[in-house]
Amino acid sequence: MTRSTIAAMAAYTLELREAEVKLNQNESPFDFPEELKRAVFARIEERGWNLYPDFETQALRDALARAYGLTSDNILTGNGSNELLAATIGAVVAPGTPVIFPRPAFTLYEKLVTVANGLPIPIDFEPDSGLLPLERMLAAATRGSVVIVCSPNNPTGGVLEEGGLEALLATGATILFDRAYGDFAGDTLPPLDDRLITFSTFSKSYSLAGLRLGWLASTARTCTEIRKVKLPYSLNVFSEAAALVALENPWVRERNVAQLVTERDRVVRAMRDLGRLTVFPTRANFIAFRPQRKALELFEELIARGILIRNVSAYPQMQNCLRVSIGTPEQNDRFLAALQELG
Amino acid sequence: MTRSTIAAMAAYTLELREAEVKLNQNESPFDFPEELKRAVFARIEERGWNLYPDFETQALRDALARAYGLTSDNILTGNGSNELLAATIGAVVAPGTPVIFPRPAFTLYEKLVTVANGLPIPIDFEPDSGLLPLERMLAAATRGSVVIVCSPNNPTGGVLEEGGLEALLATGATILFDRAYGDFAGDTLPPLDDRLITFSTFSKSYSLAGLRLGWLASTARTCTEIRKVKLPYSLNVFSEAAALVALENPWVRERNVAQLVTERDRVVRAMRDLGRLTVFPTRANFIAFRPQRKALELFEELIARGILIRNVSAYPQMQNCLRVSIGTPEQNDRFLAALQELG
Repeated sequence: MTRSTIAAMAAYTLELREAEVKLNQNESPFDFPEELKRAVFARIEERGWNLYPDFETQALRDALARAYGLTSDNILTGNGSNELLAATIGAVVAPGTPVIFPRPAFTLYEKLVTVANGLPIPIDFEPDSGLLPLERMLAAATRGSVVIVCSPNNPTGGVLEEGGLEALLATGATILFDRAYGDFAGDTLPPLDDRLITFSTFSKSYSLAGLRLGWLASTARTCTEIRKVKLPYSLNVFSEAAALVALENPWVRERNVAQLVTERDRVVRAMRDLGRLTVFPTRANFIAFRPQRKALELFEELIARGILIRNVSAYPQMQNCLRVSIGTPEQNDRFLAALQELG
Repeated sequence: MTRSTIAAMAAYTLELREAEVKLNQNESPFDFPEELKRAVFARIEERGWNLYPDFETQALRDALARAYGLTSDNILTGNGSNELLAATIGAVVAPGTPVIFPRPAFTLYEKLVTVANGLPIPIDFEPDSGLLPLERMLAAATRGSVVIVCSPNNPTGGVLEEGGLEALLATGATILFDRAYGDFAGDTLPPLDDRLITFSTFSKSYSLAGLRLGWLASTARTCTEIRKVKLPYSLNVFSEAAALVALENPWVRERNVAQLVTERDRVVRAMRDLGRLTVFPTRANFIAFRPQRKALELFEELIARGILIRNVSAYPQMQNCLRVSIGTPEQNDRFLAALQELG
């Protein structure tokens, strides 16, 4: 019954483990503020839950447009940026279209390209430099091809170097630019281009991973095309209300980013000072590293001490690597103390 | 930049009109009960919004399994049944796979098949009989093909006749069975089969269209395959909590269905008694009909009286047709009074 392409695919899995200190999914360690939760409840209580969401999510697109200096026809909103990535790939990837992306990267990219019958062209790279493999991506990109790039990149933490986006655009390729972790690198939204689609999320810097809120920006012409593929009503009324409250309170993002960047830099230094780990340069809210000892054993011993991080050893070029998300100062201290003892 | 298949597609549009009496989207006219809204808030207030939803939506799948006599590995949950339909089509439709569906039907089916590079095979039928074109679907269906059928069907209201599903399965085709309106026809979940995937929703009978809650049922083997295509974390934590509260309160569905079925039958009788309309037989929470006068004019004059219904004249075989959703008794009375005057 299943088509052969899908039968051959592996499932996206997550090993479900419980621990007191959860540093495995690059979530913000800070909950959305209590008073803002109540503001969301107040906004949603009077709204009929029996009625579909606004077809155009106009209020949210207007608010995003104001916040980012765009107009609302430059914006589409969705149920997490994953959904918008899937719709965009559906719009630009025909059977056989070459799609270039660095590897290791977010595994969903390759999966979505495969589902769309595109031709995945992974560019394997060593993450030690903290940079993405721009030269080799440029060599592979052609007019009519598609490039997917996430900067800072997950799970490595490295970035596209200055001028990289412009160079990729100059190849004539269509660029899908995932800035899920961009706030932690101090990036800003790049200028609009018909062949550039940027994906942003409220999951990380706004502490709203539970509500699944993503948005994309491009030219009005490109948004019109992607909107043909996107499912209607994909953003529920509750998440839309939360996004509006979040945008009215940018201090949440600013505070989170400031605290997490400070903590990230502190944790990187402390990990380097241990002298027993290869710590990859990172501009994100997580750190990838390679211990000298067996990564899986270290991972399990950390869990035994109540600390859950992510074993990313199965990613190409990430043999024996782990990834830790930046938590609260107290969580990071516990992680560092355990690492001092075990790592 | 856009691939040619998408460039040639029309956008899914909804004419946005405002009116006091909203009977245009087959929504429940009854809001989700106030005390249950508060129960959802209580459940979600303590939960960290910064954390991703449960990867497996285990609690909700367990609750659905209990309610429908299945096990949780027979169930996938999603952001509205649309998302699950898209994932299922991605799993079973390869480029060129023939996909058979009645026409008129929900326009999203053809769009999703087109995005997946399948071969749409619409079976045009006249909706007057209240039945879907089973014989002609059987003639078109073959082993390796896919059939999408919604019963009761939107926008016509007709159903697949008794034994139709079994007959379609016997062709060897894979059947995607959309029972979005099934509660209003008194249907029950059909027995599981590797080649049968049923789609259900909380949008209609549970009064939760605003929260985007859908689920599918099939064998564990088939669910495993579809899950490879489905986006992870597609159900946000708030909607999941609302679904759990809804399942703990099946009286909401039972009360809505009883009231809406009674009202539907009353409104159909009253419309037939007018003698100036062709009213299509319906088992859903809406009624399609063809006035003798120009449908668009009638549609506009109803809006002028504060009543918004849907002009479905652009659907094939629905020339000069309108569709009205069943509202509260008061809303239906206003619609009937206006129709008496105008129709």
